[in-house]
Formats: sequence, structure tokens, C-alpha cells
Amino acid sequence: MRELSLDALLVSSPENVRYLTGFTGSNGLAIVTRAEAYFLTDSRYTLQSAQEVRACRRFITARPLSEEAAARKLLKGCASAGFEAHELPYAQALALRKAFPRVHMRATTEIVERLGLVKDRDEIASIARAAAIADEVFRDILPTIAPGVTELDIAAEISWLNRKHGGERDAFDVIVASGVRGSLPHARPSKKKVKKGELVTLDFGSVVDGYCSDLTRTVGVGRIPRALRHAYEAVKEAQAEAIAAVRGGMKASALDAVARASLHRRRLGKYFIHSLGHGLGLRIHEHPRISALSNEVLTVGSVITIEPGVYIPGLGGVRIEDDVEICDGRCRLLTHAPRELLVRGA
Amino acid sequence: MRELSLDALLVSSPENVRYLTGFTGSNGLAIVTRAEAYFLTDSRYTLQSAQEVRACRRFITARPLSEEAAARKLLKGCASAGFEAHELPYAQALALRKAFPRVHMRATTEIVERLGLVKDRDEIASIARAAAIADEVFRDILPTIAPGVTELDIAAEISWLNRKHGGERDAFDVIVASGVRGSLPHARPSKKKVKKGELVTLDFGSVVDGYCSDLTRTVGVGRIPRALRHAYEAVKEAQAEAIAAVRGGMKASALDAVARASLHRRRLGKYFIHSLGHGLGLRIHEHPRISALSNEVLTVGSVITIEPGVYIPGLGGVRIEDDVEICDGRCRLLTHAPRELLVRGA
Repeated sequence: MRELSLDALLVSSPENVRYLTGFTGSNGLAIVTRAEAYFLTDSRYTLQSAQEVRACRRFITARPLSEEAAARKLLKGCASAGFEAHELPYAQALALRKAFPRVHMRATTEIVERLGLVKDRDEIASIARAAAIADEVFRDILPTIAPGVTELDIAAEISWLNRKHGGERDAFDVIVASGVRGSLPHARPSKKKVKKGELVTLDFGSVVDGYCSDLTRTVGVGRIPRALRHAYEAVKEAQAEAIAAVRGGMKASALDAVARASLHRRRLGKYFIHSLGHGLGLRIHEHPRISALSNEVLTVGSVITIEPGVYIPGLGGVRIEDDVEICDGRCRLLTHAPRELLVRGA
Repeated sequence: MRELSLDALLVSSPENVRYLTGFTGSNGLAIVTRAEAYFLTDSRYTLQSAQEVRACRRFITARPLSEEAAARKLLKGCASAGFEAHELPYAQALALRKAFPRVHMRATTEIVERLGLVKDRDEIASIARAAAIADEVFRDILPTIAPGVTELDIAAEISWLNRKHGGERDAFDVIVASGVRGSLPHARPSKKKVKKGELVTLDFGSVVDGYCSDLTRTVGVGRIPRALRHAYEAVKEAQAEAIAAVRGGMKASALDAVARASLHRRRLGKYFIHSLGHGLGLRIHEHPRISALSNEVLTVGSVITIEPGVYIPGLGGVRIEDDVEICDGRCRLLTHAPRELLVRGA
């Protein structure tokens, strides 16, 4: 705040409110001034916020939270205050300016996100536990994957296993894509049944203490056509090269290029239609973005996914994804599920 | 658009993009001009958007979608265009203005949401199916609720049953709150075990064709203390009065008042700390808001929840929630799970 000459910061995005205050509900406003920290929420969260919120003066209100903050003059003495311009809807930003006509309300971008980029020991431990749960879920889902079972059945089982192993919730809606549907990177699970000769892509994550993991494995059923086996080995190799290459201080775009070049060498580059990965934390997608267009640099202590994929229209798809902690030397793998092609009922 | 003197509308909130185009992915931009409809997305969704998107010229791009729209001059000839000020982050609204310097970019509020307020026959059928699934899940979860089972176990089972009965996903993270935790209206399920003498509140919903249902039931385990039984009967009665009262053309605040007055008569009004309900559709919370502060009017063809609750700190809570279609006369109940107090292992 001093760097940006801000007298106050208004934080309303739920993950950032949680990061700063501990509050896990959906409607909270944190206000940090140079002298004080305030937290506002509504009456649904009176008890919950009393249990969760640390080191803030707390207010419960039936009004919109920014109106309540204005009525209580929480920005008294502040000439300028930042709001989260990358998250706060335009209309709410205007409402803030109206509620605080004497405060210069300035658009800021990802201030709290930048604080959260480097994880501390507890945060890494939570992600590692969420990653271990994802590994356990993968191990336990394998016997289910057989001809005749639907994508929706597999997805239901994955969610259930996640909770049984201690996950708080799914980190995102489970993806199960079999056969030609595997060429849709973000397919929702459908009533389609798994058939022999297909690859099945499973993409899911767990949550521990609010921190997410994200794991993708692609499994074979029956005899897998040569082209798909080739694609699998190419993706596995591209991922291994990226995992071996990742270092603190490296450009994110350079890491993306490692996997992309590897797939191009095997003439599959044109089928790798998304970026290599993303940061992981309280949000399933956060900084750094590992893409060709990213100008971010990888920081020691960040956690990222490395998830190359190949999607061949009319044939199928392969994606392999692991979570790694960025270190000075080689990265530390947080997910450990086997990466070789597992074929069921071969 | 004619009413608002807009030459174009830019729609980016995922549910509204889905409503207008059929696209179910996470990153889409729909542009409606007086002559044309365009749809933009990224390469992850090339195939999926080809399958889903109806009646739009479609563009796939690696650039931010508004930049691509500008490069392709999709607003050529438009003097003014509306954007979704209640959803679009402030920074993205500024980026839009920068991308289209010659177009007057105007803040609009919930234009598509208003179109979606009255559901057509297909939409009602989808919500009704999602509601029927929620009923089936409740019926099937009952045998699980017994002393010693954890809230997380029950939540895992509810999610699994939802998928097994044909739900696409949970409409929101399942809430299971037992004993004193029942006094937290939005408790996340925990490792706490259910004990005799407790009420257990289950709040969950299913999704069919993107449309949500939302069902809450509160179940007893063992002998329930008198104060909690009293609270249960009071909430049940307040809900019944509201369900009997709801009519098309009625003020939302008047409906909220029916349930609130009922609870006040039983001296429990101060424990009813949230609003009575909300609209239901592609979003789990949409218009109309059924609260004391709402100035909305209930429209025939909308679907709403009616969910009074009582939350007594240190003791526990009760909530009963059903989904109803607003009609000219009596409303039509879409959820049918029993509303009397079911007590397990009494």
C-alpha cells in the first residue's frame, strides 16, 4: 500500500478475503487501512465469522457492505483507497465511488494475489495433502474404469472418493472424457459409455483447508489404437521434459515452449491447443499462467500444474497433469500417481 | 435493445452466454447487434462450441475475446453498445472502452437476466426434473443418517446419489450441518459426527440441462429436545403459510413478510436471519429475491425457493426449503419430499 501510495485497500473477492482474514463465506468485505483492519459481512455469517475471522474489527449488517462501511466512516482520514478492478464488477466500483465521494477510489490489480504467489510452509502442506488425496482417488477409481460404465458414473465415484479420503469438496467439476469426447479438453461428463479401444481422460482435484490440487490422468480400455498410443507417449515425454526443466527464475513462456517443442518434434504440436499450466492455491487457476503469451517469471515457492495435452478431432485426446512446487533446483512433485499408460481389460 | 437505444449488446457472463447461445464452456463472448449475432471463444472450445452454439457467427481466437471482436470490427456501424456492468469486472469494462474507442460503451444491468425471469415450458421441465432428482436423493440419503456418521460422509453420499439419479453436477456445494452447527446457515460439512438428540440440516440441489433445483430438509436423530421440535413445527408452519400465499403479481417483500410474521407469532422471528428465498434457473440464485428489502414483483412463470429457517446460537437450526413455480392461482410445487419432521433411530 505504501508503494502504491494507498491509504486503504478494499478487498471483496472471496478467495482474497479468505487469504487476508480466514473467512470462508461468500459475502465478505475486508478493509485494510494503515492503522486498522475491518471485516464486514451479513447476518447469515454472524457466528461463522466470529469463529473464523482473525485480527479484524468485525461488523454484521443487512445493508450492502460498502454502504455499511461508508455509514461507519471506516475510511475516515483516507485520501485514497484501492479496489480490486480485476474482480469487482463495474457497477459495484461505481457504487463504491458514490458511497465514498471524498475518497479517491483507485483501480488496483491483483495486490493480494501477488502476496499469495509464494506459498508458506502451511500452504504448501495443504496443497500437498490435497494432491495426495487426488493420488488416492486415482488409485481407487481405476477398478471402476471398464467397458459399459458411463462417464457420469465415473465422475460420481471420483467426487465420492475425494470426500471419503478427506477432501473438503471437488476443486472444480470433475471432467471425464472418453473416446472421441477426449478431443474436447473441457468435456463435461456425459451418459456416454466407455468402450474398448478408447482412452479415458480424468481431470479432477481435491481441496484441503481451501487449497486446491489438480490431477489429470488418461487411462486406456482394451486394445488402444496405435495413433493414440503414440499420442500418449508423446504427451508423457513432453511433460517429463517440462518437469525436468522447471526452475525458479525461469520465464513461464520458456517452460511452455519446452513442452510445445517436444510435441512439435513428434508432429503433434498443432493438437496442443491450450497452455501448459497454471498456478494453484486457494483458486484452482491462479498466477503464474504457463503459456506462450505469458510474461511472468516462475518464483520459488509457487505451486503450478504441468499439463500438456493432445486433442485429435474425431479420434480422441490425451492429457497428463501433475502439480509441482517450484524450487531453486529441480521442482518437487506433489502428485505421484503413475504416469505410464495404464490399460484396463487389455 | 431498441428500448434502451442500444445498437449492440456484449454478453460475457457464462450463464447469460449459455442462455443466448447454448454454449456451456467458461470463456465465451456473445455479441448481439441489430443485424447479427456473433460468438467468440478460445481454442479449448473449438469443437464444443461447434456442437453447442446456435445461430451465431463463430470465431475462435488466442487473443482476449474483446480484442478479437475489435480486430474483426464486429461493432462496425454501431454507435452504442451495452456491456454487463453488474458482472463485468471494472478493468475489463475499461479494456472494452479502449478496444472500441468509437463506440459509446454503456453500462447495462441484467438485460439477459430479465429475459430469463419467466421460464418457458422446456426450462420449467428441466427444473422440475432437477427437483425430482433432489427428492430422490433425499429419499435415498435418509437411511445413512444415524449416530456416528460424519457430516462429510453424508455430503459425499448426497453428491454421489445426485449423479446416480442423473444430475449433471451439484447445483452448489452440499451443506450438511448437525447439532449446534445447524445454527450456521451456510455451514460447510465437517468431520463432526452426528449424535443422538440432534437435528441435521441437508441443503443441496441438482442440475439438469444447466437448470438448478434447491432442496433443504432438516432431519432428527434420536430424541429431539422440545425447543428444537418447537422450532421445527414453527418453520414448517411458516413455510406452509408462504406456499399458500404466493401468487403471480404479489410483491416479493409481502411474501417474505408472511413467513416472518408467522415466526414472530411463535417468538422465533429474531432467529430468522436471512431472506425467504430466491429465483432459480441457470443460476442457483437469481431474481426475484424474496426478502423484506426487495422491491420486485413475483411474475407468473418464475421459479422460486421458499426457505424459512430458524438458527438458535448454541442450540441448533432448522431450515425447510422447496421450489415452486409461480402461477396465477396457487403455486405449483416442484419438490415433493416429505415436510414433516422425520426422526431416525428414535
